[in-house]
Amino acid sequence: MQEQLIHREVVFAGRLITVYRDAVVLPDGEERVREIVHHPGAVAILAIKDDGCVVLVRQYRHAIGRMSLELPAGTVEPGESPEVCALRELEEETGYRARGLRELVRFAVSPGWTDEELVVFIAEELELGKPRPATDERLSVVELTANEVRAAIARGEISDAKSLIGLLGYFGWQLH
Amino acid sequence: MQEQLIHREVVFAGRLITVYRDAVVLPDGEERVREIVHHPGAVAILAIKDDGCVVLVRQYRHAIGRMSLELPAGTVEPGESPEVCALRELEEETGYRARGLRELVRFAVSPGWTDEELVVFIAEELELGKPRPATDERLSVVELTANEVRAAIARGEISDAKSLIGLLGYFGWQLH
Repeated sequence: MQEQLIHREVVFAGRLITVYRDAVVLPDGEERVREIVHHPGAVAILAIKDDGCVVLVRQYRHAIGRMSLELPAGTVEPGESPEVCALRELEEETGYRARGLRELVRFAVSPGWTDEELVVFIAEELELGKPRPATDERLSVVELTANEVRAAIARGEISDAKSLIGLLGYFGWQLH
Repeated sequence: MQEQLIHREVVFAGRLITVYRDAVVLPDGEERVREIVHHPGAVAILAIKDDGCVVLVRQYRHAIGRMSLELPAGTVEPGESPEVCALRELEEETGYRARGLRELVRFAVSPGWTDEELVVFIAEELELGKPRPATDERLSVVELTANEVRAAIARGEISDAKSLIGLLGYFGWQLH
């Protein structure tokens, strides 16, 4: 049932993403054009404090044109492992260092048209590292109890794939 | 904390996606370039049979280069509502018609760089509509019990955002 790639054209090579226009042959011999976005991959961190609170970040997301409350996250840099990326992003965004990470799940964000894969880690035994600059207006750190997180999901305030998968997969909440 | 768009350039206009290179001003006055992919939006359907089995589809995903077991899903067409799209895609991909749909959740697939929003519906009271052509080698319909679905998630066979969010959010399963 595989598709065979017969021609690839780079239609955009950006700083973050590369866009391909691929011609493929389907199993039944028919040809199709597929527009594919290559992304380097990303991580998200479900950081749980000793008191059970979850560390989240609120920021403006230009792509969707609104504020969004999410798990700390970031794009994997060239040559960087997902684990190193997760520890770096957690400290950069929240000021916390984690003694250990456990992988919770990895998933494809939208496999019909992009190869972006995202790994969600659980971070526990947090300690304060380098404090974030108090003047940073781009991102605010929000620490919520599990019940408050669940209410934020119900209100649609937390509504991106990585945060929902990490939180639902960790806490086992139903949405209906 | 909003960002102000000061310049937008269309760098790729495809059949499915449009890619923008946007110049924005951050709250602290700094300028940034953001590569944004516009996608028309999509739906996924968590279709539950009267016996409790879940209707899934297995297909090759060129973007990630492998087979993938997923909820039935599709891209919203121009002028189409998510509900109409969901009923159409469910029947096209699986042969089932649903008497009713309930929205389970909607989410942004990767809000750092794309506006794609996906709506997950629950479909119950299924009946067979127009049968799918038996010669279709592109997609196969797989009906699994809830326990079999959970095992497929644990094996990583189901590992895309819409399927994980729909299944975890419906069944309340933990991943650890």
